[in-house]
Formats: sequence, C-alpha cells, structure tokens
Amino acid sequence: VRTVGDVGEFGLIDRLVPLLAGAGPEGAPPPLLGPGDDAAAWEQPAAVLVASTDTLVEGIHFDLSLPRSPSDAGELTPWEDLGWKALAVNLSDLAAMGAEPACALVSLALRPETPVAGVEALYRGMASLAHRAGCRILGGDTVGARHEHVIGITVVGTVPAGEGGTLLRRDRGRPGDRLAVTGVLGTSAAGLFALQHPGSASSEAEAALARAHLRPEPQLEAGRCLRRAGVRCAMDVSDGLLADTAKLCAASGVGARVEATRLPLDPVVRAAYPERALEWAAGGGEDYQLLFAAPSEVMARARLRLAAAGVPATEIGGLTDRPGEVCLVDAVGRDVTPPTSGWDHFARPAGHP
Amino acid sequence: VRTVGDVGEFGLIDRLVPLLAGAGPEGAPPPLLGPGDDAAAWEQPAAVLVASTDTLVEGIHFDLSLPRSPSDAGELTPWEDLGWKALAVNLSDLAAMGAEPACALVSLALRPETPVAGVEALYRGMASLAHRAGCRILGGDTVGARHEHVIGITVVGTVPAGEGGTLLRRDRGRPGDRLAVTGVLGTSAAGLFALQHPGSASSEAEAALARAHLRPEPQLEAGRCLRRAGVRCAMDVSDGLLADTAKLCAASGVGARVEATRLPLDPVVRAAYPERALEWAAGGGEDYQLLFAAPSEVMARARLRLAAAGVPATEIGGLTDRPGEVCLVDAVGRDVTPPTSGWDHFARPAGHP
Repeated sequence: VRTVGDVGEFGLIDRLVPLLAGAGPEGAPPPLLGPGDDAAAWEQPAAVLVASTDTLVEGIHFDLSLPRSPSDAGELTPWEDLGWKALAVNLSDLAAMGAEPACALVSLALRPETPVAGVEALYRGMASLAHRAGCRILGGDTVGARHEHVIGITVVGTVPAGEGGTLLRRDRGRPGDRLAVTGVLGTSAAGLFALQHPGSASSEAEAALARAHLRPEPQLEAGRCLRRAGVRCAMDVSDGLLADTAKLCAASGVGARVEATRLPLDPVVRAAYPERALEWAAGGGEDYQLLFAAPSEVMARARLRLAAAGVPATEIGGLTDRPGEVCLVDAVGRDVTPPTSGWDHFARPAGHP
Repeated sequence: VRTVGDVGEFGLIDRLVPLLAGAGPEGAPPPLLGPGDDAAAWEQPAAVLVASTDTLVEGIHFDLSLPRSPSDAGELTPWEDLGWKALAVNLSDLAAMGAEPACALVSLALRPETPVAGVEALYRGMASLAHRAGCRILGGDTVGARHEHVIGITVVGTVPAGEGGTLLRRDRGRPGDRLAVTGVLGTSAAGLFALQHPGSASSEAEAALARAHLRPEPQLEAGRCLRRAGVRCAMDVSDGLLADTAKLCAASGVGARVEATRLPLDPVVRAAYPERALEWAAGGGEDYQLLFAAPSEVMARARLRLAAAGVPATEIGGLTDRPGEVCLVDAVGRDVTPPTSGWDHFARPAGHP
C-alpha cells in the first residue's frame, strides 16, 4: 500500500487537486486562482460574507476502524464518509446562518503511514457533497501528524449585500417565540450505536441509521427558507437538542420549555431502539437539523415555506422569560430534564456518541 | 493549574473571546457578527478575495518544551510565541500574493490537560500580531485532542476589485527574469539551532536569532510594494530558498540559476555560525521572506519602491529556459547545489530545522 509518507507532501497534493476540479456553484465563474499557489483567490461581488471553521480529530470525532454495515464492502468507505462528514458539519454552520455556500479550504494533518488511496477517497467524499451543495474547494494545506489525523475545514458563504440583518442568529430569540426543529432527531446517535453494536437491530435499520450518522445532510434549503420567511433566530443541532437549546437561550437571554411528546423521534430509531429513542432525540448530537425560534405568525409562514420545499419541521415548545432555564416537560407538564446532556470537547470520553 | 479540561470548551471560549476584541483593520467597520454564533459574518464590498490556510502540529512544527533564551523568563512565552507564529505563517501567504489582511479564523485542537493560561497567552500572541497587521480574528473552533496540539488558521485578505490580474503568483516567472529575495536568509534555521544548543553562540546572538525563529515577520509591506511596482511572480520562503525556488520554477515552467555569493546571509548568523551560514541561507526554512521574479526594468522599479519603504532586497540570480533545473553556483560558476534541501511534511524527522 502506498502511503502519504511514500509519495510525499507534493506527490500527494498532485493527486488530490484533480479530484477537486469542477466542484463549484452552478453557473459561477471559475476562481481566479485555485489550489497550488500561496493562497486561493476569487472575484467577490459586494455581499455579506459568512465564514466558519470546524475541526474533526481522530479518536474524538471519528473512528476509521468502526465496523461498517455488511452492505458497505469497500475498505475505502470510511475515508469517503469522513470527507463527506467533515464538509457537512461546516456547511451545516452556513445553513444555520441562512447563507449560500461559496467555497471551502481544507487542512489535513495526516500520519505518514496513511494510505494515499484513503486520502483520495476522503477528497472524493468531500467533492461529492461540495458538488451537490454548490461549494467550491479552493485549496488547503496538508501536513504530517504523529499520532492522530486532524481534518479542519473552513467554509465561506454569502448572503446578498445589505441583507446582513436577515442572518439567522442565536441571539435573536425572544420570550413568547415558538421553538421548532427541522427533520427528525436521534438518528445520528442511534447510527453510531448501531455501528458500535452490530446485530442490535435489523440490518436494514442499522444501515439506514449508520448512513445518517456517517453522511449527515446539511440543511441548506431549510436555512434558505427560514431566512426568506423572516425567521431571525436559528442554530444547528450538533451537540444535542437540549444542549443546543441551552446555547440559543444563553445567547438570547431567554429560557425554553420543550415538550417531550412533541420531539420528532425518528420512526426507524423508535422501531429499532424504542427504549432509547427519546433520550437520543433530546441528548444525542450530530443530527445537524436546524433549531429555530420565531413569533407565531412568522413561524406559520416559515412552516408553509419549509413544507413547500419538502422540508419537515416540528414545533417542540417555546421560549420563556426565565433566562437560562431550559426544561423538558412530559405530557402532564412534569419536568423530565435529564441531569446532563450535550457534548463538551474537553470532557473525558464517557460513552457519549 | 487550571486546565482546559477543568473549565470546559465553553468556559474556555468565554475567556478567549475578550482577548480578540479590537483587533481589526484600521478604520474598518466592526464585523456584522464576531465569535459566538454558528459562523462569523461581515459586509464585504466588491473585491478580489484571497484565502489561505496553514496548520501547525506539535512535535512537527513547534515544540513548547524548547529552552528559551535566558532573557525570556516567563513560562507563558512559548505559548505567546506560538500564537504569533501560527498567524504569521498565514499572513505570510497573503503577503506573498500582495493582498491586504482582512480577517482570520482559528481552529485549535488541544489536549485536556493544557493550562488555560497557556491558551490565553496563545491568543494574546495572535492578537498582538493581528492588531499590527490590521487583521481581525473573527472566530474559530476549539476541540479536544488526545496526543498533540494542532493549530489551524485560515486567513482572508483582499485586493481591490478588478485587480485580480495583479496578484503575485508562482506561475508568472519567465526565462530571463531576474530573481530576488527580501531581507536576509538563514536566520530562522540558526535561531532554532540556537534554541536547541544553548551556549553555542553569544547570548545576544542567540536571543536575536531565537526571536526571528519564534516571531517571524510576515512581509506584508514588501508584498504591497511588489504588486504595485508591477511584479507578478512571487512566493514566500517557508520551506527553504532552493526548495521554494524549485516550486516557483515548476509552476512557471522555467529553471533558475542562483548565485551563492549573492545570497543575503544574515550578518548575525555569519558571525555566530560562520561555517553553516550559507547552508542555512540556501536550505533552511521558515524565514518568510518573499522570493520574486521580474524582468530587469520591473525589478529596478520594485527595488526602488522596496527601498523607499525600508525593505531590503537582493538580486540572487535569474530564471532560465531549462524547466525544472535549479542550480546554485559559486563565484566561478561551478554547480554547488546541495543534494537535498527543503521540507517535506511527510518525511520522517531527520534533523531538519
């Protein structure tokens, strides 16, 4: 197996650059300067620029040695999935602002014994999502690592000039706003469990859940709909619904009451792991759905627009005037908030998905 | 000592964000949205945008345990230096394009036992250079690492709209162009040697050289001068003069003849380590000077402009029509090119600075 140590930094770059050609927003002019120089460059018409960066560390955010579902025969699949996911979590941040993806820069720290074919598969996974999302990968940096792979991606997106006031911000929630979430919840946590415990559910269910964990879909169309419908407060659900609701509340200076019976459990999760579906929906991370808040009339408009775009969404509660107080209540109003939830990157690993 | 594991991801972010306030281009309006949301955002007038990313890995690109020079008493100095350098290597890429810095995003992967005060010092180091360079740090991402710290920075810069054709590119060298470099060479390699071999030179020399290694100065003013003077081909010297000349030649489809007697050796290095000064000037990396090529008349104009700005520059040879052939010649024209030079990130560590 040829490794990145064998072909060297520049041999590797020569193989990766062709994999990026062609990925870019539909109809957009080519960049002035793509990979290969000190920096990438493009002509930018006046716009509001939106930028975000996210980093995945081996052993913390991903595990290339996880068994795949039986249908995934290819040994390069983990790398391809990883490329997809690394870009997806970044595009999710743009979705959560209501921005259109423009371009991305990729920074890889790789152990020298990494197979070249693995890195090529990683880039194919990124490129396939980039192409679908209209995001151009303009370049990056590839360096050695000693112990663990680290993948950092920075994405830049846009909203039209003068529309900076319409960005979906965490700090725009107000007491009385309705709170809602797109899609279903708990799928990613269930998918990780299925990967770690093969045979714990039917193979169809395991495959579908694993796919949701490995290839999350950034909710770009949902973000677009929300911004155009006049919603001003949103974020993506990456650390877990309750943990992320707490962040939205902290930024907005409000509280939230979330109704457990309204949480959009994934029907596949409910069928496969009935006793854990609620826990994963409330506390599991990495679903990359959008959590948003708006006054009732805006919420109604937003839900119409989302429905027209084929994006499911569910009202799960409302914002309150009790700053910092986030509670999950059951059907009769009892507080059933779990003692801890969410993901702290510096916490010692403790069975969190 | 309080560690990042103690205060947690969000406690850490709360401490770091205030350290970034105020760093931004002089007179520029504040960003629409700084750290704290899913992404940062700013109103961008029409421009050519230039973006680059660079990653530093502990144990490969930096070593926090290196002894300092005796004058550097503070135990946080290594962190502060590291913050400076991580941003400097990125700004150097913007300098090498002739672009003005606009903003930066910072991605940190840190071991949980990292002292909080160290990370704060890292941010102070970054902020002090950002402030000087007119670069605003808009946000980033902070995650855990298991074995080694990784610091990734993405910078975005601008040149005025319509001036994309004036960017300093590696592939614009032509046979017959004169080749030149700013500043002096070999300083950073000598500085690393001095840090690794305390007592090998006078303490004044060691301190000065170490400082150049730890706090390189991105040549932003030089890049500005070159672009305005009509130079179109440049890159920064990060991997070593000959290795980087070879890259410029490969991109431009030319060769180069570099005259050893013309290399601008650092006088401090020549005095402290006379027998290694030439080797370090030709092959040592991380000087972050600009290497540039232009026809004689443009070169003359560029040198005038650089001199007016107080930036030293030296002609070191010329480009030839022998693609890929880079040779170092001595005073009588003999080829004295060393067998290998330059830095491959996947090569096994082998005493390279």
